[in-house]
Amino acid sequence: MPQPTQANIPRTPAAPAPCGLRLHSQAPAQVLVINCGSSSLKYSFFDTRNDRRTTRGQVERIGSAHPQLVQRGPGGDIQLTLPPGGHHEAFDAMLRELSAPGSGVIQHPSQIGAIGHRVVHGGAHFTEPTLITDTVMAEIKALAPLAPLHNSVNVAGIREARRAFSTAPQVAVFDTAFHRTIPDHASIYGLPYEFFQQHGVRRYGFHGTSHAYVCRAAAHYLGRRWDQLRIISCHLGNGASLCAVDRGRSVDTTMGLTPGEGLIMGTRCGDLDSGAFAYLERAVGLNAAQIDELLNQRSGLLGLSGISGDMREIEAAAAAGNPRARLAHEAFCYRVRKYLGAFFAVLGVLDLVIFTGGIGQGRAGVRSRSLQGLHSLGIHLDARRNRDTHGFDRITRISTTHSPVTVLVVPTDEEWMIAQETLRACRPLPAPRHRSSPG
Amino acid sequence: MPQPTQANIPRTPAAPAPCGLRLHSQAPAQVLVINCGSSSLKYSFFDTRNDRRTTRGQVERIGSAHPQLVQRGPGGDIQLTLPPGGHHEAFDAMLRELSAPGSGVIQHPSQIGAIGHRVVHGGAHFTEPTLITDTVMAEIKALAPLAPLHNSVNVAGIREARRAFSTAPQVAVFDTAFHRTIPDHASIYGLPYEFFQQHGVRRYGFHGTSHAYVCRAAAHYLGRRWDQLRIISCHLGNGASLCAVDRGRSVDTTMGLTPGEGLIMGTRCGDLDSGAFAYLERAVGLNAAQIDELLNQRSGLLGLSGISGDMREIEAAAAAGNPRARLAHEAFCYRVRKYLGAFFAVLGVLDLVIFTGGIGQGRAGVRSRSLQGLHSLGIHLDARRNRDTHGFDRITRISTTHSPVTVLVVPTDEEWMIAQETLRACRPLPAPRHRSSPG
Repeated sequence: MPQPTQANIPRTPAAPAPCGLRLHSQAPAQVLVINCGSSSLKYSFFDTRNDRRTTRGQVERIGSAHPQLVQRGPGGDIQLTLPPGGHHEAFDAMLRELSAPGSGVIQHPSQIGAIGHRVVHGGAHFTEPTLITDTVMAEIKALAPLAPLHNSVNVAGIREARRAFSTAPQVAVFDTAFHRTIPDHASIYGLPYEFFQQHGVRRYGFHGTSHAYVCRAAAHYLGRRWDQLRIISCHLGNGASLCAVDRGRSVDTTMGLTPGEGLIMGTRCGDLDSGAFAYLERAVGLNAAQIDELLNQRSGLLGLSGISGDMREIEAAAAAGNPRARLAHEAFCYRVRKYLGAFFAVLGVLDLVIFTGGIGQGRAGVRSRSLQGLHSLGIHLDARRNRDTHGFDRITRISTTHSPVTVLVVPTDEEWMIAQETLRACRPLPAPRHRSSPG
Repeated sequence: MPQPTQANIPRTPAAPAPCGLRLHSQAPAQVLVINCGSSSLKYSFFDTRNDRRTTRGQVERIGSAHPQLVQRGPGGDIQLTLPPGGHHEAFDAMLRELSAPGSGVIQHPSQIGAIGHRVVHGGAHFTEPTLITDTVMAEIKALAPLAPLHNSVNVAGIREARRAFSTAPQVAVFDTAFHRTIPDHASIYGLPYEFFQQHGVRRYGFHGTSHAYVCRAAAHYLGRRWDQLRIISCHLGNGASLCAVDRGRSVDTTMGLTPGEGLIMGTRCGDLDSGAFAYLERAVGLNAAQIDELLNQRSGLLGLSGISGDMREIEAAAAAGNPRARLAHEAFCYRVRKYLGAFFAVLGVLDLVIFTGGIGQGRAGVRSRSLQGLHSLGIHLDARRNRDTHGFDRITRISTTHSPVTVLVVPTDEEWMIAQETLRACRPLPAPRHRSSPG
């Protein structure tokens, strides 16, 4: 078996949560957060006693010939090439590095007080962070048809974590849970009612952990209570969604039954005429599997531009005069602008717009174009502050002093929020709430 | 062969166009407007010399055992049961009644100066009313995959009209044409660019004739120029769409590639997560044809309520306490509200909101609910005026005196607009404009 190799990587100090929020201080003290994808395993280690993320790391290219592990923490930063393997081997490697003399943060797996797992789809049932049992695992797996790319691999991650850390309580934190408060008239599609009630075809929404985090962090920054603000949160990354938050409650969001609805994304199409399917099948000659792959893997910024699904490359090409890159950029921002207006109408009153995610934090041009012409909504951008803001380390205000609506760039931290929710689930809870249905 | 039977129906006098607009006064003087559906043939007869619609009629239940013809005109109102037959026999019956001694308005088909046909889908090519030739007919038919329920039967109607009125110039007026001005960044979907450029997958929009008519009529009523107003036109009927009109140009609309996108409609689903298709196929077990039928025939108000696709029956059931009818009503209005906000953001400035169509003109409860909470957009409804308005005969203002945005109920008249466009096409035109594409 080949030996792992080690290399230096740029140092980033372990930092407290940038929002200034504090994790619940009750035990358990050490929380590990796991985000398990199809070819990646991301992890963060939090120490609640001093409210610090002491270590973060990820294994990438799982399943390939050369999986890579990167870890940053108080004992130093490491970068390893692992022997070929799957999620099982990736978990073993993570455990080895977390407990390695010198670079590690624990001596033994039993020192981990709790583990929080990001789970993408909680369906209608899971509306709170949930202590994982065999039954819960089966229920999460049963939701796989709603998120075929995500839930199965989330379950695989949970299984590995239960094996590796057998003594710690494990908690599932759902991307959909924050949106449990969306009312039925906003979550229902125009399909026959039985599809809503029996088949679970409804707007679930995603990115809930991120939306909840940035709203709370922004309110803290402004010295306000987040349950007194009307906010539109724009999480713009490779996946992208907007969320209307009415005094602490999600009331609408752009993603729906799946993470494919709403905005144009890196490779996802977003909103599409439902009649396009019949047309793509009959007139273009694609079958269902080809359409699925088309909409999720070859569409979005990548498909529009023909260049890349990465907004940085789109902007560079647009600046160099590429007309398709310009069109992709404009179409992306235009759809953000439409949903800002839609959610303004939903909220009736707007206090705050938040930009987060890789694009939301890093691309000033997307922010300015998306907000263009929205003075009548009370949104006035400070062009210079916006241009100078690359919000990866701190919260920045980019609206003018007198703008009726405040606009902030807020670095997101889903892992911190999952740690927080994990701690909450480890305390006694009232019975889980279920979505209500009329009739 | 059974003889037609005749019966009296309530009399409505032939009236000038309610908008106060005037048809082009140049020859030809007599214009027949044809709207041919799969089981119906509607027709209106205009005399441009006195700007009157002298006769209107329709044959319904074409293809059934007992087609019905109803006609109202200066010579009296008639109602007939026709012998069984198709569109061919329906055209013959129309021609017979239009030229009948006493009730008719012409002595011979050659007296018709021009015929205007409503054609639903003009694709990217037809952006103006177009004189019909054999080539044009073939091109309209070739667009059938984009509107399978409509274009083929529109072509059948044109064929019958050319046979019955062989001397009159025939003009196709397209539901999509008014939306030719929607910019690419608003009409493109997030699919690979070749689907936009080569396969014509883009937002075409529909109801264009109605949107254009009510905008012009409303501007005339207000004593303003329609090319100086920012308008959101809400055509709410069995089919329903909103249109953002920026100084006379459609800049966005809710319907898209097909008339199935956007709002919840009588039996159509409207907006739906594109990922729902894979779910409906794999998890619910429907095939493509079943999904198509589900989305177009069994969804919308009918599917949500389980009662009816007719908003009058939904409102009656909701008033009686039916929870699904209430949900259907609220979901319908909520989606109108979201698009009002979206198009407000698109326009930047809003002068006028127009309600038209059977629901828009007739259902005060839908108007008030759709506009609820939009004070921050400058929309203030006069509750009493709204409640008392059933706008089938005249234009009515339902906003308060001091509302920054004026709200009007405007009776639509697509036939008048088609007559107008037909006359325009019979005069020499500049070369037709084509949509532009980048790259």
